[in-house]
Amino acid sequence: MNGAQSLLSTLVDEGVTVCFANPGTSEMHFVAALDAVPSMRGILVLFEGVATGAADGYGRVTGSPAAALLHLGPGQGNGLANLHNARRARTPLINIVGDHATSHLRFDAPLTSDIASVAETFSLFTRTSAAPDDVAGDARDAVAAATGGPTGVATLVLPADVSWGEVTSSSTSTVAPPAPQVPSQTTLRAIADQLAAAAKPIILVGGAAARATPLADAARIADATGATVLLETFPPITTRGAGSPVVDRLSYLGEFAALQLEGCDLLVLAGASAPASFFAYPGAASSLTPPEATVVTLCDASSDAASTLALLASTVGAAASPAAVNAPSVPEVPTGPLTSASLAAAVAATLPEGVTIVDESNTGGIHLAGALAGAPAHDVLTLTGGAIGYGLPAALGAAIGRPDGRTLCLEADGSALYTLQALWTMAREELDVTIVILSNRSYAILNLELARVGAVAEGSAAATMLDLGSPDLDFVSLAQGLGVMGVRVDTAEGLADALTTSYATHGPTLIEAILPKGLG
Amino acid sequence: MNGAQSLLSTLVDEGVTVCFANPGTSEMHFVAALDAVPSMRGILVLFEGVATGAADGYGRVTGSPAAALLHLGPGQGNGLANLHNARRARTPLINIVGDHATSHLRFDAPLTSDIASVAETFSLFTRTSAAPDDVAGDARDAVAAATGGPTGVATLVLPADVSWGEVTSSSTSTVAPPAPQVPSQTTLRAIADQLAAAAKPIILVGGAAARATPLADAARIADATGATVLLETFPPITTRGAGSPVVDRLSYLGEFAALQLEGCDLLVLAGASAPASFFAYPGAASSLTPPEATVVTLCDASSDAASTLALLASTVGAAASPAAVNAPSVPEVPTGPLTSASLAAAVAATLPEGVTIVDESNTGGIHLAGALAGAPAHDVLTLTGGAIGYGLPAALGAAIGRPDGRTLCLEADGSALYTLQALWTMAREELDVTIVILSNRSYAILNLELARVGAVAEGSAAATMLDLGSPDLDFVSLAQGLGVMGVRVDTAEGLADALTTSYATHGPTLIEAILPKGLG
Repeated sequence: MNGAQSLLSTLVDEGVTVCFANPGTSEMHFVAALDAVPSMRGILVLFEGVATGAADGYGRVTGSPAAALLHLGPGQGNGLANLHNARRARTPLINIVGDHATSHLRFDAPLTSDIASVAETFSLFTRTSAAPDDVAGDARDAVAAATGGPTGVATLVLPADVSWGEVTSSSTSTVAPPAPQVPSQTTLRAIADQLAAAAKPIILVGGAAARATPLADAARIADATGATVLLETFPPITTRGAGSPVVDRLSYLGEFAALQLEGCDLLVLAGASAPASFFAYPGAASSLTPPEATVVTLCDASSDAASTLALLASTVGAAASPAAVNAPSVPEVPTGPLTSASLAAAVAATLPEGVTIVDESNTGGIHLAGALAGAPAHDVLTLTGGAIGYGLPAALGAAIGRPDGRTLCLEADGSALYTLQALWTMAREELDVTIVILSNRSYAILNLELARVGAVAEGSAAATMLDLGSPDLDFVSLAQGLGVMGVRVDTAEGLADALTTSYATHGPTLIEAILPKGLG
Repeated sequence: MNGAQSLLSTLVDEGVTVCFANPGTSEMHFVAALDAVPSMRGILVLFEGVATGAADGYGRVTGSPAAALLHLGPGQGNGLANLHNARRARTPLINIVGDHATSHLRFDAPLTSDIASVAETFSLFTRTSAAPDDVAGDARDAVAAATGGPTGVATLVLPADVSWGEVTSSSTSTVAPPAPQVPSQTTLRAIADQLAAAAKPIILVGGAAARATPLADAARIADATGATVLLETFPPITTRGAGSPVVDRLSYLGEFAALQLEGCDLLVLAGASAPASFFAYPGAASSLTPPEATVVTLCDASSDAASTLALLASTVGAAASPAAVNAPSVPEVPTGPLTSASLAAAVAATLPEGVTIVDESNTGGIHLAGALAGAPAHDVLTLTGGAIGYGLPAALGAAIGRPDGRTLCLEADGSALYTLQALWTMAREELDVTIVILSNRSYAILNLELARVGAVAEGSAAATMLDLGSPDLDFVSLAQGLGVMGVRVDTAEGLADALTTSYATHGPTLIEAILPKGLG
């Protein structure tokens, strides 16, 4: 058994059975080992950003890590943006980066670079395997780090000679990450008392606490204490639609978020960070926490969020279920020109039960959350780290993680172009993914942000930088080029028809939805 | 004047007049400043890897830096692979990365990450501007660092508040990078004597010494001293074809490179590193330098390569021009099925004078150098850092840098998929670029490397990882989707026709050349 085989069999032992791979020469023994360890499913992608985004999506929907296999420092660079999103989502993920053979590094060959220093910026664990005998222990440590309390990205750098060298005696794990924490009964009682005493308490839910059960627990706690529940702006994964508690997400726009938080005198953080604006703006405060509010952390990345919220619900004597849940409410199929509003209505009118929605719709998707409130229950993944190009890869990973379900990817045109290669792997693996491209031929969010940051741009040079026309993108042709069937629609009824057809069709479909140009 | 305007006007003062940009919210004042500083040409790209690769190509053909504008840490990550290639090419390049406002960083907003630590892995200068007044001096320092001796990537991190803040008094530069060095006459005389005394001296030329004049000087020195000239495997830019000296490139395959270097007792390095294999292989030495050879460095990255080679040519009393130059020799237009050989012949049969060839053809391009030896003189750019996805962006940048010429991009199918978004900007800027996609539906190089590293992969799981079929990529549709006219050819005469048509047509054309599958 060589180091690569030891790595794959150890990962499989630890429950990691999927690897999104974009290998090169230094990873050839890893690739060959896929034949020796058939329980590991290797999935080829055409770009490393697809590998890391897919591993992020897989980790969010399954709660278990997938591996990404990248080719040296440049490959890790290509995967960095979606590793950043995974870091912000606290997704368990094993990032395997091949490197030159140890003895080769001193020759500073063309592909040599400092892999570990880059990995440390997004990983909670970074290690370079020193010898074939170390690989098994290193892999166990990486999985333990990725799945401990807190969860996140664990990077294992695998030199080629460690991969091809023979294992004589496998190591065992050497580190034990902290177990997830639960507050003491005293702490829970104190928070319960604070909630009862506050005039306008808000429970801000995020991270692992945004999953269906802890979110419902938060709603039950709020019912019992007179608090309001808000979801963080970009939760990693949450369950919405009919039957889910009535809660709003904190607005991306600081002006609106401030209104949502106005008057709050107690802010209880359940897996979310203290609210701050996404970007800074001249003359505006970055913090959105009302200055008069007391901020209490109920649970954070180190916590067992589900247990913590369940315990607090007991402590406050909460009812068995939330008082206010979204009633089923499916709109009529809309007709007429596509707009952000009619697009959202068409999605809501046609959504089947149990769909996983990967949302990178940005400005064009502004009406989706409202329209989908009463739609059949569905999970939603969002852009946790702000690094665009997450949607298509995450949808690929979600579909691998939930092979019996349908994944719906709502994708802005500008963002789609970052990692469009994901379509090819969706076709190759025959995944049941429906992609809607929200095509407004513009970096519309930037037209909005240009004004918000107070920049004055009255000439054409600046305007050109925000315009995706000249030439217009043609996503139907792009999809065809990557082996995915595409269709273009410009009416609400056309979108509804295309969605319905796609849901009934095995394999991926791309629907290019033509919206009014710009902010529409 | 705000910080962004100060940056742009300083860059223009220093001769940096092109910026390949993929901006976000934190770069909005930079974008707005393009209206205030019209001498700076902003060119929008759809992905950061295109911005950095284009700046690399521009810097190689012009010898002057372009700027790339990237959006925070994830944007820099997306640009990292081509910054790695630029680092290896020692391309002067100004890498501008927007960041959050200084006061915003402590809130750890979603897009926050450690930009500088990543930049330091590929930059010879990294600085974060602290205040609007500092920006002018920082920009001058960055340009000085990028264009000094040695040249390379200079990274300037620009926080949003530094960008939008008012300048009250502009700073000046604070660092003076070392000037390029020239060896003393004593050193040159000693090397001349060593060349004369050696039995089989080889001058290995690379980096800046691979440009037309120093390469011809190296050939003249070799003629006078009985030495042989070899070009490094992947020079940043060199001039080949009719009238260029007869020299071979060191083979990518270590087995062949060892034959080229066999018996060498004196290895003179002129801008090249001591030869080592690209990757390590089990049981094979990484170093390709014959153990009996004395290694002498004539010039390196700190040197003025052109002056050094001219001086050594004088010292050895070299003739005015190289003894052996490639004679003009244009083959007949080939006919029949496309193969690697007939593809190369078709390119050679149709090449106009003065074309800039960006070569990322990999395995499919194996016959190109031979076929093009007698073709009209042309410059060639190669994959210096081994990070694939450089070709299309570099062709974009080369075409911006040489607006009166034709750029020919010879691009492998697998590599094309990394940064295909470059096509859109070629269409938007109406650039005279001809792209030939060498489509063999395979990571053919990896099929070769799998055997070379001694990996045994007899099952389908490994084979699937190297296969780009299922589904086949359709580059004509992909080009159409990005606004570029495409045509598919599968015969040599068809390729020759398509090339001739493209050379006569303003704007970009993509030609998908269907080769036999795999190694062909």
